[in-house]
Amino acid sequence: MAELRREPITRMWVVITNDHPKGPSDYLAFKPPYRPQDMEGPCPFCPGNEAMTPKETFILERPGGGWSVRVIPNKFPFFHIEGGFDRRPEGMYDVMEAIGAHEIVVEAPDHKLNLAIMEPQQIEKILFAYRERLIDLERDRRFQQFLILKNYPGVFNRHPHSHIMAMSAIPRRIDEEIWGALDYYQRKERCIFCDIIKEEILMKKRVILETVHFLIFSPFASRYPFEAWIIPKIHSPDFHHINEEEMEDLSVGMQSLFIRFYKLLSDPPYSFAFHTSPIQSRFHRPEYHWHIEARLRIGLREGFEWGTGFFVNPTPPEDSAAFLREVG
Amino acid sequence: MAELRREPITRMWVVITNDHPKGPSDYLAFKPPYRPQDMEGPCPFCPGNEAMTPKETFILERPGGGWSVRVIPNKFPFFHIEGGFDRRPEGMYDVMEAIGAHEIVVEAPDHKLNLAIMEPQQIEKILFAYRERLIDLERDRRFQQFLILKNYPGVFNRHPHSHIMAMSAIPRRIDEEIWGALDYYQRKERCIFCDIIKEEILMKKRVILETVHFLIFSPFASRYPFEAWIIPKIHSPDFHHINEEEMEDLSVGMQSLFIRFYKLLSDPPYSFAFHTSPIQSRFHRPEYHWHIEARLRIGLREGFEWGTGFFVNPTPPEDSAAFLREVG
Repeated sequence: MAELRREPITRMWVVITNDHPKGPSDYLAFKPPYRPQDMEGPCPFCPGNEAMTPKETFILERPGGGWSVRVIPNKFPFFHIEGGFDRRPEGMYDVMEAIGAHEIVVEAPDHKLNLAIMEPQQIEKILFAYRERLIDLERDRRFQQFLILKNYPGVFNRHPHSHIMAMSAIPRRIDEEIWGALDYYQRKERCIFCDIIKEEILMKKRVILETVHFLIFSPFASRYPFEAWIIPKIHSPDFHHINEEEMEDLSVGMQSLFIRFYKLLSDPPYSFAFHTSPIQSRFHRPEYHWHIEARLRIGLREGFEWGTGFFVNPTPPEDSAAFLREVG
Repeated sequence: MAELRREPITRMWVVITNDHPKGPSDYLAFKPPYRPQDMEGPCPFCPGNEAMTPKETFILERPGGGWSVRVIPNKFPFFHIEGGFDRRPEGMYDVMEAIGAHEIVVEAPDHKLNLAIMEPQQIEKILFAYRERLIDLERDRRFQQFLILKNYPGVFNRHPHSHIMAMSAIPRRIDEEIWGALDYYQRKERCIFCDIIKEEILMKKRVILETVHFLIFSPFASRYPFEAWIIPKIHSPDFHHINEEEMEDLSVGMQSLFIRFYKLLSDPPYSFAFHTSPIQSRFHRPEYHWHIEARLRIGLREGFEWGTGFFVNPTPPEDSAAFLREVG
């Protein structure tokens, strides 16, 4: 089980997992340089090994047998699904149970595939799985926030997969974006994300590519080299209200971005996160504008960023966008 | 030269260095697993090679000749010292010049030394160098914030060194702490850091060690395994107002903490940052309480933390503190 502890000064919630606490010996195996390895033995995400994982919450079956996308509960979740919040004091501090859902999306049967070399049709199926799971999880009134997240390559298993989470607290970064969007809306009665889209299309120099429904660009104050955002050109707070036509268009945009990363930086490690409005009527923010933030994990400034919350980016976003445009 | 660009949604300043922009080929050399190497050729921080670095801003000479600590301007600074802020719009965005100081503290003549195996007397000399440089830099009225930061081992050079920075913007993390401390003060008319110190000394379970003037503990909502804070037990907003007796006491505490890290996790990589009040009367915060935050770089959750601002810590701070207490 895990609990959420509130950092008393900044009020940020931190997940502390205390069911299998890790001692020094658990970390000694992971001394840098980190070299993520495939787990030993058969891969539980590969076809034929379905019995090694919990029962799926969603499966997209293939007409000829087998499946093309499969969603399963994470065996090692950050959040647990059972129980109540039990919000309580601990001395001067605040604690609650880490209630939530944490599922793994197995993105394809093929262990060696990845998003850069996948057909857009397969990415469309992954997006469909994301959407269907979110629509289902929305019915649990305890959840305030969805997260879709991918780390490539996977730390413990290289089989292509991503994470879906539903949580009972709004993460700091989303909260800051909401706060900023609301403040801007109060001053201008316009969405700040919509204004950024107009500005970037006008200025061109940070645009990587445009599809019918999405803009893919390097943001003005990119925190990371080759940072890229994928954002719907029409205002929408919620990813899971995406329609079929938009999903098809988004899958083409995503594949195009990931193949550019792959070609430009020789299959670099990356992460992406879907930022979408909190759910439930009392948390939902119509002023928010959902988008995907993608980051290559190639920086070297980690200590500085940690110590200060100050980011140093040695590749201006205009350069990043130009490189990514030209490699396409 | 570098500029500060304001992220329009969250209003966070990001340093974009555009003098030697890094393209894809610069990053290909650093594909993971990262393996920081000593630079090739003679070390510019070693005695005898002083001519390879800019003229020092501070030097602590040894009675018998040579030096024990040396502070030099960084040849590759994040912030530049010349010029004005030139705050200006760029379309809908905000930009200013990244004005500041960025100096390197060479912590000892011996290339192979590190804080864990250093004499406390040598750490005291480093603290003295920090203080003297901050007192000098405070005279430049353009600076709002000091930072002292160390990454061990160094990314580009393993010779023991740390960073001193003076900046014209307050980093996000410090700003959040100030905001939280002020809010708490308004409600309680007490310092939140002072209250945390009392609580932790009372509860004992997260205390690693206590010296005469300092408490070293794992915070209640530790974001990282074995996270440790070093905090003066008497309220003080500013590190650079530390006196000689406190410096001697702090050097003993620091050495004791770093040898514990060293023994417990077999010489792990770590970072530390001094968090101290902004300077200049219009930014200074008497309610703030300076402290050192230390983090082992042994986590594996980097993608999740980046994507969400949500931290997951698999080692409860009570366990971390117990391990670090017992290894002492």
